Amino acid sequence: MSSVVFGVDVGGTTVKIGMFDQDGNKLDVWEIPTRTGDKGINILPDIARSIQEKMDAQKIEKDQVLGIGIGVPGPVDSSGTVHVAVNLGWGTFNISETMESLTGIKTAAGNDANVAALGECWKGGGKGHKDMILVTLGTGVGGGIIANGKLLTGSTGAGGEIGHVHIDDDEKDQCNCGNYGCFEEEASATGIVRIANRILAKSNEPSVLREKKVSSREIFASAAAGDKLAQKITERYGYYLGKGLAIVASVTNPELIVLGGGVSKAGGILITLLKPSFDQYCFQGARDCKFSLATLGNDAGMYGAVRLVLQK
Amino acid sequence: MSSVVFGVDVGGTTVKIGMFDQDGNKLDVWEIPTRTGDKGINILPDIARSIQEKMDAQKIEKDQVLGIGIGVPGPVDSSGTVHVAVNLGWGTFNISETMESLTGIKTAAGNDANVAALGECWKGGGKGHKDMILVTLGTGVGGGIIANGKLLTGSTGAGGEIGHVHIDDDEKDQCNCGNYGCFEEEASATGIVRIANRILAKSNEPSVLREKKVSSREIFASAAAGDKLAQKITERYGYYLGKGLAIVASVTNPELIVLGGGVSKAGGILITLLKPSFDQYCFQGARDCKFSLATLGNDAGMYGAVRLVLQK
Repeated sequence: MSSVVFGVDVGGTTVKIGMFDQDGNKLDVWEIPTRTGDKGINILPDIARSIQEKMDAQKIEKDQVLGIGIGVPGPVDSSGTVHVAVNLGWGTFNISETMESLTGIKTAAGNDANVAALGECWKGGGKGHKDMILVTLGTGVGGGIIANGKLLTGSTGAGGEIGHVHIDDDEKDQCNCGNYGCFEEEASATGIVRIANRILAKSNEPSVLREKKVSSREIFASAAAGDKLAQKITERYGYYLGKGLAIVASVTNPELIVLGGGVSKAGGILITLLKPSFDQYCFQGARDCKFSLATLGNDAGMYGAVRLVLQK
Repeated sequence: MSSVVFGVDVGGTTVKIGMFDQDGNKLDVWEIPTRTGDKGINILPDIARSIQEKMDAQKIEKDQVLGIGIGVPGPVDSSGTVHVAVNLGWGTFNISETMESLTGIKTAAGNDANVAALGECWKGGGKGHKDMILVTLGTGVGGGIIANGKLLTGSTGAGGEIGHVHIDDDEKDQCNCGNYGCFEEEASATGIVRIANRILAKSNEPSVLREKKVSSREIFASAAAGDKLAQKITERYGYYLGKGLAIVASVTNPELIVLGGGVSKAGGILITLLKPSFDQYCFQGARDCKFSLATLGNDAGMYGAVRLVLQK
């Protein structure tokens, strides 16, 4: 067997580990539980052991391993230092150095959303682009910025954490982060439900949504089926999504914005919905920006972790 | 003489050329006019000739020249391609390649504000930092973003053009760019005069500003001298400055923001004025950001151009 790279995506309950060849072809994937107890002290040793077992089973020598890449749910700077990862129980320490001393294998580490952006840029919806943003529209809004092919990590790993960019002066509800009017408050799966509840409460128009538990999926499905009020809700959602992305794009001037996360399953209609407000709010020098949908799903983090190793 | 680098700052009327040693010490500076006629076709040949004359006069051989760095007033991407520079009459072409064919010397090119940021990061107010933003508060608001020590140029050179990031939903006046509520509308020298005129018109309070032609300098001087209305104006200005920088910092998570341009002559009071709204609007993961004042003045562009060469 020729050279391999391990790509690791650490989640709050499960660690996903993939073995890839040096061209980024996936050879094997498996999972182990994330042991978050004892301040998460077992997480990296568990990963190191699991990788070693795989190497033993497949008769892979250490010198065939180009490196290990790890994405974690917390801010990680360009040196591989994580600055507190609450969900893992972690404080501040250098993940790369710790993992290297556990395995003797070169390790690169990054924030999970950032690493996912690198994955989509390499093998997914952003393939062929070097200035790209991935925005993940889930329970919250996450993101990653690729500038000239490299991750923008920021000084303490919060670079590309675009969910808490201020985009709305009129929002009176407080964001989980403590601020008001964050991108995440309006453009997440939670955000569209909030928008829906407001519009439903304000109007007497009939809507199939009045008889349902309102969710992002229901709203988009009802809009697609012709429900006028649901369409009004998705339009409003698109307005906020476009406005927020315009603000971010005016800072970094990407060639492409890739939409990922649960809400992105609504598909290409999202791009149609966000375009008018994107064009309205984006600086004209950055307005000529393309949009696409993420394609790697939950594998994006592993691919990006591998890419992080190969870029070093 | 050992190795030298030429740093060139192209302005709308004058080209500033500096000769530096490889450690960034300034050896010589001179200026030539910018001939913007005939679609600016003479600008680069004029610079090439002037540099050659300097080399001849100082008996500098081509192999002693490490390179030429050029900053221009227009968007320049990471390949050195300028995407229309209206003030120079230029369309879209590769500055680096053109200059290399004129001189036979390796050339790097960038946008003037971006290159100034690189200069401040290398030798000025941002020295010792690798994740930094320079914001220039002049007639407009310009800027440059340094991420992990490198310029963030964006896909078409508009990266770091933070003057047109949307920061205010209530602004009814249109920005020069065509949008409403741009950072530049509120935080430029023009912006503070607009703020002043609004506050003066709304209030009957006495103020020394009522007898003067209101300018950024007058406003800050009057505020420092104890004029209550002038203080209200500078506070409002600080609010917008802090809010805009918070939005940008929430995207890129800089370690330091350097304030430059004419308005920054007001000094450290600006930092005091912007801090409350910066803290209010910035994502907490990026809030621990320092502020300083630019120190290189009009030389920042030359220093940054030299740095651009040495980084290649």
